[in-house]
Amino acid sequence: VTTRSAWILAIGDELVLGRCADTNSSLLARRLSERGFAVRGITVVGDALDDVAAAIRAAAAQTDLVVATGGLGPTEDDRTRHAAARAAGVELRFDEEGWTGIRSYFARLGRPIPDSNRRQALLPESAERLPNASGSAPGFALPIGAARFVALPGVPRELAAMLDAELLPRLDRWFGGAGALALRELHLLGPSEATAGERLAPWLAERTDATIGITASGGLLTLRVAARAAEAAAAGAAADAIVAELRPRVAEWIVLDGDGPLAAAALARLRASGLRLALAESCTGGMLAQQLTDVAGSSDVLLAGYVCYANDAKSRDLGVDARLLDKHGAVSVEVAAAMAEGGARRSGADVALAVTGIAGPSGGSAHKPVGTVCFGMWRSSRSDAWQLRIADLGRDFIRRRACHECWGALLRALGST
Amino acid sequence: VTTRSAWILAIGDELVLGRCADTNSSLLARRLSERGFAVRGITVVGDALDDVAAAIRAAAAQTDLVVATGGLGPTEDDRTRHAAARAAGVELRFDEEGWTGIRSYFARLGRPIPDSNRRQALLPESAERLPNASGSAPGFALPIGAARFVALPGVPRELAAMLDAELLPRLDRWFGGAGALALRELHLLGPSEATAGERLAPWLAERTDATIGITASGGLLTLRVAARAAEAAAAGAAADAIVAELRPRVAEWIVLDGDGPLAAAALARLRASGLRLALAESCTGGMLAQQLTDVAGSSDVLLAGYVCYANDAKSRDLGVDARLLDKHGAVSVEVAAAMAEGGARRSGADVALAVTGIAGPSGGSAHKPVGTVCFGMWRSSRSDAWQLRIADLGRDFIRRRACHECWGALLRALGST
Repeated sequence: VTTRSAWILAIGDELVLGRCADTNSSLLARRLSERGFAVRGITVVGDALDDVAAAIRAAAAQTDLVVATGGLGPTEDDRTRHAAARAAGVELRFDEEGWTGIRSYFARLGRPIPDSNRRQALLPESAERLPNASGSAPGFALPIGAARFVALPGVPRELAAMLDAELLPRLDRWFGGAGALALRELHLLGPSEATAGERLAPWLAERTDATIGITASGGLLTLRVAARAAEAAAAGAAADAIVAELRPRVAEWIVLDGDGPLAAAALARLRASGLRLALAESCTGGMLAQQLTDVAGSSDVLLAGYVCYANDAKSRDLGVDARLLDKHGAVSVEVAAAMAEGGARRSGADVALAVTGIAGPSGGSAHKPVGTVCFGMWRSSRSDAWQLRIADLGRDFIRRRACHECWGALLRALGST
Repeated sequence: VTTRSAWILAIGDELVLGRCADTNSSLLARRLSERGFAVRGITVVGDALDDVAAAIRAAAAQTDLVVATGGLGPTEDDRTRHAAARAAGVELRFDEEGWTGIRSYFARLGRPIPDSNRRQALLPESAERLPNASGSAPGFALPIGAARFVALPGVPRELAAMLDAELLPRLDRWFGGAGALALRELHLLGPSEATAGERLAPWLAERTDATIGITASGGLLTLRVAARAAEAAAAGAAADAIVAELRPRVAEWIVLDGDGPLAAAALARLRASGLRLALAESCTGGMLAQQLTDVAGSSDVLLAGYVCYANDAKSRDLGVDARLLDKHGAVSVEVAAAMAEGGARRSGADVALAVTGIAGPSGGSAHKPVGTVCFGMWRSSRSDAWQLRIADLGRDFIRRRACHECWGALLRALGST
């Protein structure tokens, strides 16, 4: 397998000012890696013409493929077209067909077309236009030195659509089969990254052919196994073989054996079992419901969600006995169990999850410090409740860790692993 | 004001493989910009020694300050120390004091120290160690050519702590006052990015001293004004003067005149007015509640949140009349108004917001296409309801646009702008 190299450019003042995170580049990096490209680096620069042109030239000089995002908008500060033309040593031309596409995009939206959008029909002379079905800015591709240069829009939704529709199909044509990468995921709850790493170290030392990545997010560890081969089927078989060796080494921590996110896997499992769900959330404040409804078509499974911050709401909406709240406090396994049962009974759901805890930064005590979170799960008239002391790594961490715990518990209960 | 320039490096195979997003660099970019540095670019490279050393050299050759994150771990593939020494043309030394710090970090955790962590006590000979209070990897700083080079750990929590504790205090010492940057935000709902850009173009052509950025997310436009001066007060006054000119030009679209996110601003406005809120969500599925509870201490304001996907839940939990659902359908201004009123009455809230719509990708019809979303706001026994046709730019876009609409309506009703 000849490995082709790639470089990614992200262009925009908002990125170098740190006003938004560059999510496009990690998507591109992942997809190019899966296609067998070795992504050598990512460069982020502002909109200044000189900087963009220099970054394009530097990237094109050392890799086979350069993919840029951003700077294709209709305003004066969008200069990727100009920078690419300069780096390639060509002029810009007005692309009539591109202009027709832009006008019909606006016509579909039923909006008048601002004159400034004419700018988006400019292309470097030697460039091929890449149509953009979901936005006004077409992309383009042209050779720069020995490299292929591709410019795509910076709007994440448009980029994702054009990556699939325009870029990936061209890669085979340009480079032939550049090999395939198969990825497999295992999700673990419990150990720290270091603990999991230490457990795996002796095995990894022997399996030098296996590429295993560990990432941690909100306390959830994701192990990613990557295997390369000339063909997708062979890469898949190699990845499966590695996972088969890996699985027994971390078995007690696995909450999902397959692709995430956990909420999507939990939804699929519920649907397959014909079970309907209710959610009763205090400290996660809607995050569980939001994660589930991120997945389209969750309405057949999610019967109801209750965000009950205040004790009154826990009693009124979930029927939690006020004496229970008085006796044990809102953050207690007793209240968590009652919340789950109340959510299930009120909505008629088959399964209910409840979370009540102290996400911080304030609200903790010596007895119940920030990070104390209680969980309830009600299923088939049986309720379970348990408590975690989540490390106080910030409010967002505690909330995300609590959501992982819920989905993990549900997946385990439904026999996921 | 002499503007100092900076370059950011992010190091790690997981980044060029696209397995996790590089959030460190946007944090660094934001904080360095606020301190008056012009961030010229960000480079992301894998762990290969040659690539890291080349990236350090290239960045140091063209800027005053280079800040790198990642590659300081205890394993063989962590090579930032070696790459910095090579780029500086010095050897590595074993730093006894650093080793003492690493051992005491493990002692505090009550964990045995793996031998591999000795590697983290290596430093380029000319480097100053930067202590890491929240992790095992110390950072370091040294001159490389005419630039200052700083290496910090890649774990986001450790990076954030060391940025405040170690890096920022050194910047004044190294560079003197590098000037200050003031940022102001205006948030607009309604126009497209191009429409807003066109409206502003004539004014921007005259005000070449003003830096105005426009970003769009979920249909919300954020205008960011940046002004630099030697002192923070002067930068602030300059930014305010630009905003005062900008404001009347976009007045009818402004939903928030100040820093976002909208949910945090809405929460502050509700609290200042002594009002308590209920949320009734269908198609946003908990996203409104989640955005509000992202902000710590929202429990005094948010009385209850109801996620009511199914019609049954709308009737049972919000008291929406089944005949209303039959007659007008779940996605109707009538039902939206009834959901808001029901949420307020059930919870005793002073204000309630309701959303019901078709987020897609399926569920649309000719009469009510995907993107049809109805909103209800109940306040002081009065209810308003309205409908939007949100462009079908995907499920996530429609949900986020719907949330912006809710917070924008609330901010307008409370007299925010």
